[in-house]
Amino acid sequence: MGTRVVALCGGVGGAKLAYGLSRLLRPEDLCIIVNTGDDFEHLGLHICPDIDTVTYTLADVAHAGQGWGRADEQWMVMQEIERLGGESWFKLGDRDIALHLLRTQKMRAGSTLTEVSAYFAAKLGVRHSVVPMCNQRVRTVLETEAGELAFQEYFVKHQCEPIVHALQYAGADDAGLTPEVTHALQDDNLRGVIVCPSNPYLSIAPILAVSGLRARLRALSVPVLAVSPIVAGQALKGPAAKMMHELGHHGGALGIANLYADFIDALMLDTQDFALAGRHNAVSPRLLFGNIIMTSRDERVELARTCLDHLDHLGG
Amino acid sequence: MGTRVVALCGGVGGAKLAYGLSRLLRPEDLCIIVNTGDDFEHLGLHICPDIDTVTYTLADVAHAGQGWGRADEQWMVMQEIERLGGESWFKLGDRDIALHLLRTQKMRAGSTLTEVSAYFAAKLGVRHSVVPMCNQRVRTVLETEAGELAFQEYFVKHQCEPIVHALQYAGADDAGLTPEVTHALQDDNLRGVIVCPSNPYLSIAPILAVSGLRARLRALSVPVLAVSPIVAGQALKGPAAKMMHELGHHGGALGIANLYADFIDALMLDTQDFALAGRHNAVSPRLLFGNIIMTSRDERVELARTCLDHLDHLGG
Repeated sequence: MGTRVVALCGGVGGAKLAYGLSRLLRPEDLCIIVNTGDDFEHLGLHICPDIDTVTYTLADVAHAGQGWGRADEQWMVMQEIERLGGESWFKLGDRDIALHLLRTQKMRAGSTLTEVSAYFAAKLGVRHSVVPMCNQRVRTVLETEAGELAFQEYFVKHQCEPIVHALQYAGADDAGLTPEVTHALQDDNLRGVIVCPSNPYLSIAPILAVSGLRARLRALSVPVLAVSPIVAGQALKGPAAKMMHELGHHGGALGIANLYADFIDALMLDTQDFALAGRHNAVSPRLLFGNIIMTSRDERVELARTCLDHLDHLGG
Repeated sequence: MGTRVVALCGGVGGAKLAYGLSRLLRPEDLCIIVNTGDDFEHLGLHICPDIDTVTYTLADVAHAGQGWGRADEQWMVMQEIERLGGESWFKLGDRDIALHLLRTQKMRAGSTLTEVSAYFAAKLGVRHSVVPMCNQRVRTVLETEAGELAFQEYFVKHQCEPIVHALQYAGADDAGLTPEVTHALQDDNLRGVIVCPSNPYLSIAPILAVSGLRARLRALSVPVLAVSPIVAGQALKGPAAKMMHELGHHGGALGIANLYADFIDALMLDTQDFALAGRHNAVSPRLLFGNIIMTSRDERVELARTCLDHLDHLGG
């Protein structure tokens, strides 16, 4: 049995499970592939919400409550930008801006996103691999009743209110697997893959859309386990449940099984959703049940341990 | 007699006199042409030390003691940049960074430096004109015993220590007069021009080097008055006296008379330098004496009033 685990991850919910995994696995045994479909330029800065959330969470410097940004943050730059008439709808803290400034500088100087992400993770004391899904620019675009919206417009400006008709991951066809992603997914020593409880459309689908990535997952001989981001019909955070409904994937968490059916072996649902077992007719993916709500750091580690156990049973 | 005054200005010392003038003249009667030879890119930000010092000083938000940056400043971004391994030799405060971010964004979007400078002056409540000497990139380069140094390297990194052999204002030949500078200097209603007490090599010479500017000053029919930045053989601030010595312009403040001889009508020296009157053989520029040390806001206004009086006498 292999020792190495790959996790596919978006922002907050996924980052919590990634944190749990990082407390159980050696640095060389965990590679977290992170969504970059939400990345954008703002105030001339290159911003990577999910990579930063994962890195800050693993470094234990993430803000506990708000779901983005740093703990112990200050807001002087934003306050002054507002005073000077600059755009202030997207809040950036002072510590956060420091990282964005350096990242933007490094990328203008020719570094790849993979390189700068590894640099900042190391500087913040994160020893596990946090890698972007690709180095090319991929942007999640939502076709909504209010027209085409870039992710941040939908998420922050419009507060996820417009009904979504479809999504595009612009640039994904032209994006290629990085050596780091390729290596992680072909590792002879692979124990399995975990799809973290992140929004399937906004966080996981962009990763899957990177040319060649979904095919690699499908072809793996080791188990792939997804953890549902939906409990009792509600997303733990964000618009996942609302979007599934709008996009015609009914059935609550079972909708996730449909979305990932071609490449996962099992889907872990919360025990609150045990009744769904009776409505699941397919043989694959297998449904597993447990507590998937992570309110404490202990619960993150707990769920990570459960996921690893499941991987090993599925593989064994 | 005209009502409009043009001031040529560098950083701190010049900004104090510009402040004094702004308290005596209506907004439409003062145009401050500011050195941009010190401008540079740092951390991907477009930084204009002299324009910002003048604007912050006129807005009364400049730091009182340190000679650059804002009062009531915080340093979280810089602190975090240092932690993340970024360059920290040039200190930028959080409020200051807000302005640099917006300026960089606006310039990337195609605004001229004249436009963005006017924008920020207005946002900070400055009603008098603060205009850059030109819109093109001009960079002061110092040829020193330690090799060629960009201004900030010389000034901040090397603390003005290397002996200076010569200076270049790279790009000045290709820089042209802006409509704002042209208009200010050809105004039929011009009362006179004041060269503020700024470093002649680092602050005033770059302005004079902009193609066509020195010739315009020489051709003016209204009086041009310079105020010495040197008192009793010492610069009030910065390396002016040291550089004059290194570059062979001896004679303390009288060296200023030589540097500006072709376009000024009078040079104002401090009363402490009254003895220099006996060593000044030339008819022009005329030497004037008074208190040119501005330690309080009242003294800034006092010196401004004296300068305006002198202009009017010279013109009358």
